Amino acid sequence: MKDNWVEIYDTTLRDGAQGEGLAYTVEDKLKIARALDEIGVHFIEGGWPGANPKDVEFFERAKSLQLSNAQFAAFGSTRRANALAADDTVVQGLLAAQTPVVTIFGKSWDFHVDIALKTTLEENLRMIADTVNHLKSCGRRVVYDAEHFFDGFRANAEYALDTLAAAAQAGAETIVLCDTNGGSLPEQIADAVALVHKRIPNVRIGIHCHNDSELAVANSLAAVEAGATHVQGVMNGYGERCGNANLCSVIPNLELKMHRRCLPDGKLKLLTHTSRYINEVANLVPNDRAAFVGRSAFAHKGGIHVSAVSRAKETYEHINPEDVGNETRVLISDQSGVSNIRFKADELGDEFNKNPEAARRLLSQLKTLEFEGYSFEDAEASFQLLAWGALGRRKHFFDPIEYRVWIGSSGNPEAVVRLNVNGQEMHTASLGVGPAHALDQALRKALVSHYPQIQEFHLIDFKVRILDGEHATAAKTRVHIETSDGERSWNTVGVAENIIAATWQAIIESVEYGLQIAAA
Amino acid sequence: MKDNWVEIYDTTLRDGAQGEGLAYTVEDKLKIARALDEIGVHFIEGGWPGANPKDVEFFERAKSLQLSNAQFAAFGSTRRANALAADDTVVQGLLAAQTPVVTIFGKSWDFHVDIALKTTLEENLRMIADTVNHLKSCGRRVVYDAEHFFDGFRANAEYALDTLAAAAQAGAETIVLCDTNGGSLPEQIADAVALVHKRIPNVRIGIHCHNDSELAVANSLAAVEAGATHVQGVMNGYGERCGNANLCSVIPNLELKMHRRCLPDGKLKLLTHTSRYINEVANLVPNDRAAFVGRSAFAHKGGIHVSAVSRAKETYEHINPEDVGNETRVLISDQSGVSNIRFKADELGDEFNKNPEAARRLLSQLKTLEFEGYSFEDAEASFQLLAWGALGRRKHFFDPIEYRVWIGSSGNPEAVVRLNVNGQEMHTASLGVGPAHALDQALRKALVSHYPQIQEFHLIDFKVRILDGEHATAAKTRVHIETSDGERSWNTVGVAENIIAATWQAIIESVEYGLQIAAA
Repeated sequence: MKDNWVEIYDTTLRDGAQGEGLAYTVEDKLKIARALDEIGVHFIEGGWPGANPKDVEFFERAKSLQLSNAQFAAFGSTRRANALAADDTVVQGLLAAQTPVVTIFGKSWDFHVDIALKTTLEENLRMIADTVNHLKSCGRRVVYDAEHFFDGFRANAEYALDTLAAAAQAGAETIVLCDTNGGSLPEQIADAVALVHKRIPNVRIGIHCHNDSELAVANSLAAVEAGATHVQGVMNGYGERCGNANLCSVIPNLELKMHRRCLPDGKLKLLTHTSRYINEVANLVPNDRAAFVGRSAFAHKGGIHVSAVSRAKETYEHINPEDVGNETRVLISDQSGVSNIRFKADELGDEFNKNPEAARRLLSQLKTLEFEGYSFEDAEASFQLLAWGALGRRKHFFDPIEYRVWIGSSGNPEAVVRLNVNGQEMHTASLGVGPAHALDQALRKALVSHYPQIQEFHLIDFKVRILDGEHATAAKTRVHIETSDGERSWNTVGVAENIIAATWQAIIESVEYGLQIAAA
Repeated sequence: MKDNWVEIYDTTLRDGAQGEGLAYTVEDKLKIARALDEIGVHFIEGGWPGANPKDVEFFERAKSLQLSNAQFAAFGSTRRANALAADDTVVQGLLAAQTPVVTIFGKSWDFHVDIALKTTLEENLRMIADTVNHLKSCGRRVVYDAEHFFDGFRANAEYALDTLAAAAQAGAETIVLCDTNGGSLPEQIADAVALVHKRIPNVRIGIHCHNDSELAVANSLAAVEAGATHVQGVMNGYGERCGNANLCSVIPNLELKMHRRCLPDGKLKLLTHTSRYINEVANLVPNDRAAFVGRSAFAHKGGIHVSAVSRAKETYEHINPEDVGNETRVLISDQSGVSNIRFKADELGDEFNKNPEAARRLLSQLKTLEFEGYSFEDAEASFQLLAWGALGRRKHFFDPIEYRVWIGSSGNPEAVVRLNVNGQEMHTASLGVGPAHALDQALRKALVSHYPQIQEFHLIDFKVRILDGEHATAAKTRVHIETSDGERSWNTVGVAENIIAATWQAIIESVEYGLQIAAA
């Protein structure tokens, strides 16, 4: 490995899985491992084989994965006090996982040795050395995670350094300094890393940060600047409490700004895709504002910004979004000027340039709709339908005739819809857990025999905003719906004084858009 | 102001409002301004009075707010090229807002002067100086935001410094270095701030960071370390693209770790409440993983962590959560609700102290309701009804028997309600512009002959949040309603899978609470 390389050690499947609301199946973990190998991290920490049967099964099934770039690591603790490493069940579990790398954590903070381990400082040093030794003698590469290193270093620097020396002398190839509580500041990290680098030479130094002070990315970069060449983190920054250092930010900062190498050639472009794929497997609401990979990361709303960006992208973009596989988006909103629409229309190719009459029609339609309370900044599919309409390219799939919904304090809401589909009148009914759900189900029943592809569409998000709150329950309502066909997802909008009418409109458009792109 | 003070300049209402998915009403902005004043930031940037009529209305209404801690700032640009500041409509708009502070932004990056302003470097310096001069001569305190300062400094350091000197010499009291694209690293920020500090003495230096590299908090802290004493940011880190520097992290890092002062004595404890309140007003999904203020920030899941935390909290908590008004949560035995009680029971404090059994009953009820998706952060009237209930003081006004609503694509929604009021069955019906409005009207018809005071109640705000977006149209819905009797206003909440059921519940509670306080 050349001098400017920094090893990326991904712990999405172990420390990252401690996040609230996360519960991976073994199948989920295998999917994520494949994606991590594809983007080219150096190490994939798969789990703690001693801690739960799911992780044992994961390592069993992982043996048949053909990895191209990464190596698997199994994670566990040092042996118990006053015992032999070879007899320790945790250590045996680590070896049984048959990974090329084993990572063990030990205590660096004297306070912790006392209160959590309830043993002596000397025995703790022996626990570290013995465990590393035994794993080495069994042919494993050993990474040593020094838990609470920075707290320990602040409390008793000499003892904390002794624990590192014990691991290094016993043969650990990397010594990872962990900011377990996430409470350190960047200069504290930098100072400690630089000192360790000087005091314990000939060993690779790693860093493992948590985001409790919203500084995990900065702390990881500060450690690299001070001599660390191994960074542990989690894709999308999941993890216990406030999460682990977010590799989706650490990696592009290191590669694009600090001129280090982390991933094989050309792989950085997979970052946005990998982030979103893992998010989908984790089944979490995505963070649109995420740096580098978020849906809003290169989205421009203010009129001034947009007019400047259309002249020179670097005026409001710190990197080229394509370098991380993301893209510039222009939001259509009442804060924006004409330049937003011109820029937006670029995506529809030259068609609007060749047809200025259609562009004018679209502009005046947008102006009217935004005045009525529509917002297209999170409803690109509705915008696209309007644009296709202005160009005479919007396809026609069905005509809604009527809908009715009944809701009462007892029983489920019930919806009835009537549609004209290819000359045939469809009249269907459905119950639902709420009125929108009942309508959605009834609409599907009416369409599925003509358009079986709608079975692939499913609504994945639903948002309601009351416009003009002063009119309270008589106010206008805006409904946003996000729909997916399993590969792509799209957003539509409906606005009406009646929330059900707004929902109906957004559902209709989501189906129309889905049918049109499926037909393309 | 003493030496270790750092001024907090909040731009939640201006730069923060550029975030995707945000659309504040004037009423929302006034609510947020009151909350910001309560926690004690130094400055509240209310908007850009030249840019849209909503901000003009905001400043007009803000004149009657009695602020205890903060001063309002109006934001705008320097005058146009080759014109007089006094004749400039943007500058006139800034003065018309009648705020004690005016903040103007100007260009520091030579490239931008050329490509965006299309004027000469010399004229840009005159635009800055003239505008500051004119505002000062009109009696305003002037803050100068140097847009793109760090990019400009990297491209042409001397010119970037000249723009700052122009503002300082013309009388700006604070010069704010903006990392507009969010692309800088902490050491770049620190180096530039230190140099500016040396080259332009006798002026306060501020910092304004964006989070495009997930470094906005670290960059703000690095600037303070290098000499800045004014930090601009946004509560919860909202803002365009990846957001602005998150004041909910900047402030506790400065106060608890860097030993600076930012807020008046005792106010840091309001941080979590303020963050959540603004989140509710913004109607955004809260970030549970947010540092310091997130619901998961001090939540412990891993078995080792939980057992260590139960022995000594500092083993896995970097600060005392109570210092920021947050709390430790152990996920296997959920403790949430405790802080709500502590925070809100103040008003009923003595009664609960005398009646610990009632306090326990309320706690267990809150725990259940919050698990079901209720949130009492912005629903104090619903909380009060629960508290009165636990103390046996909740009054009884009517019993709902049944409601039904019909909604169709033609005609208005219609609601029918049946209630038992003082032994008499009332059965009424009403049309409405939407289903909630129809229900509200029918309920009023049923009650008005028994409780004529409800004629004074009117609903003034209505918000809908979809919980658990993954279930889309089948997701749970939370409805918040704000009601006023002309003097006081109060908030209630309802949660159900069916939006109409949630609305019905919030309307019922709004009437019950109103009747009880009217009777008191």
